[in-house]
Amino acid sequence: MPVTIKDVAKSAQVSIATVSRVINNKGYISQKTRKKVYQAMNQLHYTPNIAARKLQSKHTATIGVILPSLDNPLYSELFENVEKYLAVANYQTLLCTSNNQPEREQKYFSLLQANQVEGIITSSHSKFFIQQDLNNYPIICFDRSISKNIPSVRSNNYLGGQKIAKVIIHKNKKNILILSGSKEDLNPINDRIKGMLSIFQNVDTNVQTIALDFDSSLLVKKLLIQKILSTHHFDAICCTDDLTALLVLSFTKSQNHPPLITGYDGSTFVQTLFPDLLTVKQPIGPMAELMCDLLLAKIQNPQQNFETEYVFPISLTQ
Amino acid sequence: MPVTIKDVAKSAQVSIATVSRVINNKGYISQKTRKKVYQAMNQLHYTPNIAARKLQSKHTATIGVILPSLDNPLYSELFENVEKYLAVANYQTLLCTSNNQPEREQKYFSLLQANQVEGIITSSHSKFFIQQDLNNYPIICFDRSISKNIPSVRSNNYLGGQKIAKVIIHKNKKNILILSGSKEDLNPINDRIKGMLSIFQNVDTNVQTIALDFDSSLLVKKLLIQKILSTHHFDAICCTDDLTALLVLSFTKSQNHPPLITGYDGSTFVQTLFPDLLTVKQPIGPMAELMCDLLLAKIQNPQQNFETEYVFPISLTQ
Repeated sequence: MPVTIKDVAKSAQVSIATVSRVINNKGYISQKTRKKVYQAMNQLHYTPNIAARKLQSKHTATIGVILPSLDNPLYSELFENVEKYLAVANYQTLLCTSNNQPEREQKYFSLLQANQVEGIITSSHSKFFIQQDLNNYPIICFDRSISKNIPSVRSNNYLGGQKIAKVIIHKNKKNILILSGSKEDLNPINDRIKGMLSIFQNVDTNVQTIALDFDSSLLVKKLLIQKILSTHHFDAICCTDDLTALLVLSFTKSQNHPPLITGYDGSTFVQTLFPDLLTVKQPIGPMAELMCDLLLAKIQNPQQNFETEYVFPISLTQ
Repeated sequence: MPVTIKDVAKSAQVSIATVSRVINNKGYISQKTRKKVYQAMNQLHYTPNIAARKLQSKHTATIGVILPSLDNPLYSELFENVEKYLAVANYQTLLCTSNNQPEREQKYFSLLQANQVEGIITSSHSKFFIQQDLNNYPIICFDRSISKNIPSVRSNNYLGGQKIAKVIIHKNKKNILILSGSKEDLNPINDRIKGMLSIFQNVDTNVQTIALDFDSSLLVKKLLIQKILSTHHFDAICCTDDLTALLVLSFTKSQNHPPLITGYDGSTFVQTLFPDLLTVKQPIGPMAELMCDLLLAKIQNPQQNFETEYVFPISLTQ
């Protein structure tokens, strides 16, 4: 005969309601009681049949996150922050990485929905989400806009690009490379480049823009950068993300008159290990917190109206 | 009336069996047919009710991964590789990070089981899994042993420690700090330290071992390292992981006579950005591939016997 919640309650010497609260992670339960219930569940080999419960209840206390990759410390930190804030609200977080492939995004989106996550935070780089009818589904975007009804959280990419360009001009650099980590249309990187160009075009500079393929492996990107640097000389190389800046630095740091290298993102990882890198700091923690707040609010009240865009201020590391 | 699989099949002009194969990701489906079925599902707002199907079928084509954190590039690369290999086998991967907190591991383990993942790959640092009765559940461990029945995949930590120590001795370093990134008993780091000490103890050296707290944030670790370096001088600092080595390097690289810094892990990220770092390379890709192979074999045949430990050879970067 299968073990039931009644058996667990009896073994743990608590009420069925208490076992249910532990399983569903609802309401206050003391550590001692929680431990007793878990012990009884383990002893009896009882696994709450959430698949069955899901058919009755929509409260799974689980959120899905879809990110393009974890290569970039920006995404690791964003996820760690989202996980932390959702844990405080008693939500669990499942992460999928799509490598920007629309087909994988489609699969993971279906998987998360089938597992009845209550909402999704995505930083999808492909156009898959744009083609969906998502108006009724709680979803928050990081760093790009899907539709008017889906809130998007990002930093002020245009201003970030302008601020970096002003430092370059102030340091009297003339021969400038803008090195972009992506070729995608939708990418926030384009606003960073536009911001830089809006400053550079007003002064006497020679500016070249080269885009790498976002989906290339680190090693392929490094080879492409090596090729560019071997045939050109620049006074400054403005990278549209820190990872690209670090790859460039791995070549230039040992040069006698290295160019000035700048980045964008300012993750704690990069700031801690490369405190000398001039870069734009996105407020990753506060952005993650707002995305969680918006998503939980949208789950509680799907009819509530939100802004289409939440744009965070940025600052330079130097 | 709710939309059914029949409606989707009719709209896509394919058979019900074809729609089912697309949804369940089973058997060969051409890209064209897959696209037609997805389009029909989107148009009709049809979400396959996997929660309901799960009650009938155990084949969810989903694997869960539990990692301590994503701070360390080793874990990001391990996950990316696991995701890639499982995708080839038509499996999807869900990631949870536990921050080594037994309570969070417990919650995520329950969540993954409730979502009926077919198996779990874990690099759990807490003792939670050891206390579980997991004999019948497909699970593979990275870098630590849970029980005799659960295969564990790791690199030859002891030999890695020995190899690094031999280089230190060869370079005639006498005053040595072993800086460990963790205080945990179960940690593979202890074998690395034992390997180092087995070499150092035979020669005239002055060796000190200091352990940092694994769960500390990067900034706290950096402060602790700063404090150690401000009061002691060493000829060599042997770190038990690359992340700790990079933190030490961020202080010592600008010194006139910097100590020799060594690491352990050798992720592509670290090797690409810090090609000069002397470190031990774990074969992350092949280890991830074996874990996936073992797990899928165990899912297909739970009675099959495996080795308790699979120990991969290591090499130095220099």
